Parts: sequence; C-alpha cells; structure tokens
Amino acid sequence: MTTKRRIAIFGSTGSIGTQTLEVITANTDRFSVEVLTAQNNHELLIQQALHFNPNIVVIGDEKKYLLVKEALIPHNIKVFAGAKALEDVAALDVYDIILAAIVGFAGLQPTLKAIETGKTIALANKETLVVAGDIAFRMAAEKKVPIIPVDSEHSAIFQCLVGESYNPIEKVILTASGGPFLGKKPNFLLNVRRDHALQHPTWKMGAKISIDSATLMNKGLEMIEAKWLFNLQPKQIQVLVHPQSIVHSMVQFSDGSIKAQLGLPDMKLPIQYALGFPHRITNNYPRLDFRKVSQLVFEEPDTKTFRNLVLATEALFKGGNLPCVLNAANEIAIFAFLRNRIGFLDMTDVIERTMQNISFIANPTVEEYFESDGEARQFAANLIKM
Amino acid sequence: MTTKRRIAIFGSTGSIGTQTLEVITANTDRFSVEVLTAQNNHELLIQQALHFNPNIVVIGDEKKYLLVKEALIPHNIKVFAGAKALEDVAALDVYDIILAAIVGFAGLQPTLKAIETGKTIALANKETLVVAGDIAFRMAAEKKVPIIPVDSEHSAIFQCLVGESYNPIEKVILTASGGPFLGKKPNFLLNVRRDHALQHPTWKMGAKISIDSATLMNKGLEMIEAKWLFNLQPKQIQVLVHPQSIVHSMVQFSDGSIKAQLGLPDMKLPIQYALGFPHRITNNYPRLDFRKVSQLVFEEPDTKTFRNLVLATEALFKGGNLPCVLNAANEIAIFAFLRNRIGFLDMTDVIERTMQNISFIANPTVEEYFESDGEARQFAANLIKM
Repeated sequence: MTTKRRIAIFGSTGSIGTQTLEVITANTDRFSVEVLTAQNNHELLIQQALHFNPNIVVIGDEKKYLLVKEALIPHNIKVFAGAKALEDVAALDVYDIILAAIVGFAGLQPTLKAIETGKTIALANKETLVVAGDIAFRMAAEKKVPIIPVDSEHSAIFQCLVGESYNPIEKVILTASGGPFLGKKPNFLLNVRRDHALQHPTWKMGAKISIDSATLMNKGLEMIEAKWLFNLQPKQIQVLVHPQSIVHSMVQFSDGSIKAQLGLPDMKLPIQYALGFPHRITNNYPRLDFRKVSQLVFEEPDTKTFRNLVLATEALFKGGNLPCVLNAANEIAIFAFLRNRIGFLDMTDVIERTMQNISFIANPTVEEYFESDGEARQFAANLIKM
Repeated sequence: MTTKRRIAIFGSTGSIGTQTLEVITANTDRFSVEVLTAQNNHELLIQQALHFNPNIVVIGDEKKYLLVKEALIPHNIKVFAGAKALEDVAALDVYDIILAAIVGFAGLQPTLKAIETGKTIALANKETLVVAGDIAFRMAAEKKVPIIPVDSEHSAIFQCLVGESYNPIEKVILTASGGPFLGKKPNFLLNVRRDHALQHPTWKMGAKISIDSATLMNKGLEMIEAKWLFNLQPKQIQVLVHPQSIVHSMVQFSDGSIKAQLGLPDMKLPIQYALGFPHRITNNYPRLDFRKVSQLVFEEPDTKTFRNLVLATEALFKGGNLPCVLNAANEIAIFAFLRNRIGFLDMTDVIERTMQNISFIANPTVEEYFESDGEARQFAANLIKM
C-alpha cells in the first residue's frame, strides 16, 4: 500500500476501541490515527492521544473538556467536547475510515454524518442499524459508501459473501455462543446477579454487550442488523447456538451450499478485516487448531427461557420504530440490572411492556426515531421507577 | 442467461457422468449436451445419447463401435471409437465446457486436448493433476483456461477462494470422511474384503474411488491435486478426518481467518457449481439441517494404519514423476484387490515398492510421464504376478 489509511475511532476507550488501537499499532505502515473520541474516560483518552498523536480528540462529557484540552493542546492536538462535536468531527475530511464503536444510541448520529460525508464505515455500533438501518443504508447507497461490519458474526457473513455478488442468499445462520447461562432455565435466571451475568464464556467484551449476550438480546439485535447489512427478508435469518464460538456465522446460497467463517474468538480479527478490506492483513495471532477444538456443536436456541429473542424477532418482522423501541427499553433495562435495581428476567418484562405501549410508526423519519427512543426510555424508566 | 452452455461429458456412464446428466436434465434452459463418451458401457451410452441427443458420441472400446453406431446413426448422432477419437473430439469446437470424468490415467490426454483448445475445464479426473499437474496448469495459464474442480473437497476450496484474490493462503485443510475403516487398526484391515471396502459411509461413488477412500489414497491424491489447483507449497496442505462429510474443506488465510464450505454429501452440488460458475444454480435438493447434524467432529488421520497417506505425502513433497508412479501402482493394486488377488494392506506394499523401484525424473515431459506410468504399471503387475 502506498498511502496510509487515515482512521477515526469513535469510542476509542471501550473494548472495541482499544483493540482497534492494538491492530493499528501492529500496522503503522498501513494506518494512521486521526481522530479519537470517548464519552467519559478522559484519562485513557489523553493517554491514547499522547501515544497516537491524532489530529483531533473529542470528549463526550463536556465537564471534562478543560482537563483534556490542557493535556493535549501543548501537543498540537485539537480538542472538542459534547455530542454536537462528535457529529461535526465525523463530518470533517480528516480521515478515510470511521471505526464506529460508540456503544448505544449515542453512536447513531456521528455514524450517519460519516456516511453522509462519504467515509468508509467500519461499523461496531449496533444501534445505527438496529434503530435506523433503513435510513443508514438508503444514505450509504446514495453516497456509495461501503459499510463493513465489525461484529464477528456480521464480519463472518460479509467474508462469506465476498465474490458471491451473482448469487442469491437463501438464508444466513447467525451463530450464538449462548452466553454464560446456556442450558439454564427461568427458575435459575430469576436469581442471577450482575457479576455472574458479566462473565462471558468465550468473548472478552464490554458490560452492555456482555449482558446482551447473557439475555440473547445481542443475537436479536444482530438479526435486525443482518437484515439491513445483507438486504434480507426477516425469514431468511436463523439463529443457531454454537457454544464454542468457532464458527462465527454462515451463509446458505440458493444452491444449498453453505459458506462459514471460522477462527478463534478474537475481535482483533474482524477489526483488522474491516480496516484492511479487501486486503487481509497477515498477522501472527494464535491459530485455530483442530487438534484442540475437535468438536463443533450446534443447537436450537431456547426461546422459552431467553424470551428476548422472541421480542427481537417480533421487532425484526414488524419493523418500523419497533426495533428502536426494543433497543431503547433494552438499554434502560440493562442499566437498571447492572445497578441491581431489577432482576435478570425483569429485563425482558420491561422491554415487552415498553414495546406494547409505544405507538407504532411504520416509516419513521430520523426525528421520529429520536422521539420513539426518548418515549421508550421514559416509559421503561417509569416502569422501573428510576 | 441468453445462450446455453454446450457441455461435453467425458465418462458419461460413470457415477459423475450420470449425476452430471441429472444436473443438466434439471437445467435444460442453461445447458445442452453436445458430446458423450464411455469406455465400455455401450448400452447406457446409447440410452443417454437417445435421450440427450448429443452432436457426437465416443465409445472407448473399439469392439463396441458398430453396436453404438448402428443404434445412433439413424438419429443423426456422429459416433467414433478408441482412445485417439477421445482426444480428437476433445479438440473439436462443438462444446464450451468439458466435464472431465473419465476415471484413471485414460482421462489425461483428452483433458489436455481440451485445455489446449481453450475449453473451460470442469475437472473430475484426478489423474490429470496428480500425474501431470505441472503441464496442465502451464498450458491452462497460457491458454487462459479456467480449471474448475468437481471433487467436493476442491470445489469447497475453490468456493472459499472466490473474491479472495488479494489474499495469500496460509493453508488448506482437506477434510476426509475417513472411509469405511475409520478407527480400525492393521490387524483388522488384514482381513478386509472387496465388498466391505466398497461400502462408503457418506458418499455414493464409483468402485475405484471407493477403494481409494477406504485406503485414504483418495485424500493423498487430493493433496497433490490441491497443490496444482491452488498453487500451494506441499507444507500448506493439511488433511483432517471429519467423519460426517459436512465440512467439505477449508482455507486458512494469512490473517488466520478460516473459510469453510459445508453441505450434505451430494456430488450434484459441486457438479452444478462447476458447470454454472460463477453463477450458482438455484435448486431444491435437500438442505443441511443443523437440528439433525448437531455435531461436527474432527481428528488427525491415523497415518500409522493408513500408510497410503504417507506415500502420497512423499510423492507430494518430492514431485517429479513420483505422483505418476504412485498413481499407476495404485490403479494396479486396486484392480488386483477388486479381483481378490491381493489383500487390503498389500495394496500399500505394492505402491511403496513400485515407488522405490522406478527411476526418479525431476521434470518429466508428457512422454516421460507416459513411460513412467507404463513402467510403474508393469512393475506393480509383476509384483502381484498378474
């Protein structure tokens, strides 16, 4: 490669953000860091900025602006603060690829700005697609912007689809580890606490996504993402539990042939794939060894126990603002669970009741998505009495 | 598709040939049958010709020429006979794709003629690559002829490589069912008879390849084929036993990511993939159902028991005329075993001693390949006293 790809990492202090910086550190001949953003963790953000020397840094929490500014201005790094600054910086022509890793709904607007201004999108923020996949993909098609998923499951499907543009997809099979409570029944889940739910068996991840993985909502959100990423009908999306997390997902084509992508569970692989695409980057990470992983097991998800998957499937099929409502209620429910305000199974009840109570909108505008998001959060919070 | 692809099936009465005709029957809008050839089975050949109405038919056995001619001339089908006629017809511009399904060394010359005259090659004849892969690929590169493998394993690898032209292969993993004697030890194999060896657990195949599968020579030949098909170093080729025959093979790229192709064991799938490439052809064959196949198991091959794999690996690494010698001795050994002239384990001894006794040639010409083939057959036959 002759010129380096200029990278903006939105959400650089989280799990995906820090792993992205590891990938870039190993490939400084290919990538430069131009933008770093974080919501709260100003200490790590400052440390990252001093190390990678980006053009611009944004701290989400405006109260921390002066702290960050004082630390970085002497190093000639521009510093901004607040949600509006995230959008404005996403629109600047100082980078080529955005690694969109902000967790939750806050990641939506900057990502839409990046699409609008023609950047390549390496997408780790689920909400952009779950909430407003229709708008994001309409805009991406108009601007001819590639959206490359960073999620291991969607990256697997994306990899399986390379070179298959002639060939209709029959279905995609999203694999799910099953999370820490695979095989458990509701009477067990009733008493599950935060610390147990945060222990994921195969993947090292942030708190929100770890809980989503324990409730299977993660897979539900991924179904909705897959619909937009790969232009699928809801019925073309199947979830299959695969506890080893070795087969990251699969595609079945219209001739019945299935392609799968496999590897050790390591988010650095889909991250570097997204940053380097269409070139894979040679590395010396540990390899999958079939002498150690001699069995791959698959089973149907237990949707009677993990009802979030049923709710997400309903949102997938009905569409409109329902995925947005599902997502908002889920964020509030997880927030409450992580603070020990509600139990594990209560999360599903909160989401279900919120979905039943917010008015359905078939084709929302961006503004209506924001309204639905706010209403759903308010309703869910009232349920919990937060 | 606007114009039909004109197909020549060399070896139309064998297992691959008849399945190819099934595929064409289901897709008469895409394909027409222009050439059919068979070695001995004139009755089926005549029946196929009357049904598919090809331009030309070739019967290998010259004694059957008149029988075939009398049956088909009234239907305006040209009939030829003998090995030379196979080559001559392969060179004619009456077809677009050759399905090269002649079993054994006899398939080599017609396939080389087809390459020389610029046809697309759907390759089911292993010997073209095992014996003279260097020559075939040099010629194919010169004539810009695509060689699309029909073997399920190589088709899997080919499918995994589509769209990955930028990306170096780290290794390929050829899966092996293990055959009917998986887990057995030499003291058991000592007493194995023809009928038992012909019972393959997952694939329905012809006699020669069924025995090759029971001795694992099939996988050895496939390693050599893979070297030429995918331009690999011998050490990049790994064999992995996978008794379910669901994962048809895998590719590991230089980033550690593995792509696999999966499906039910049905040769019609790789056949129609090769004929339709790059378009997959929609069908309603039974689909893989992970509720039924809930476990995929992998293990190292037992090379102490199945020593053919060691011999083939030696031929793979040393190259030259050694794969040709291996192949010739193997054909003779199987022929003798199928006639109950030698035991199951004797086959390996015949091959090994033949490999030790034929002079090594590092860079053989086509003529030298033919000489090595003849010498090896003679030597092996003498060992067996046939």
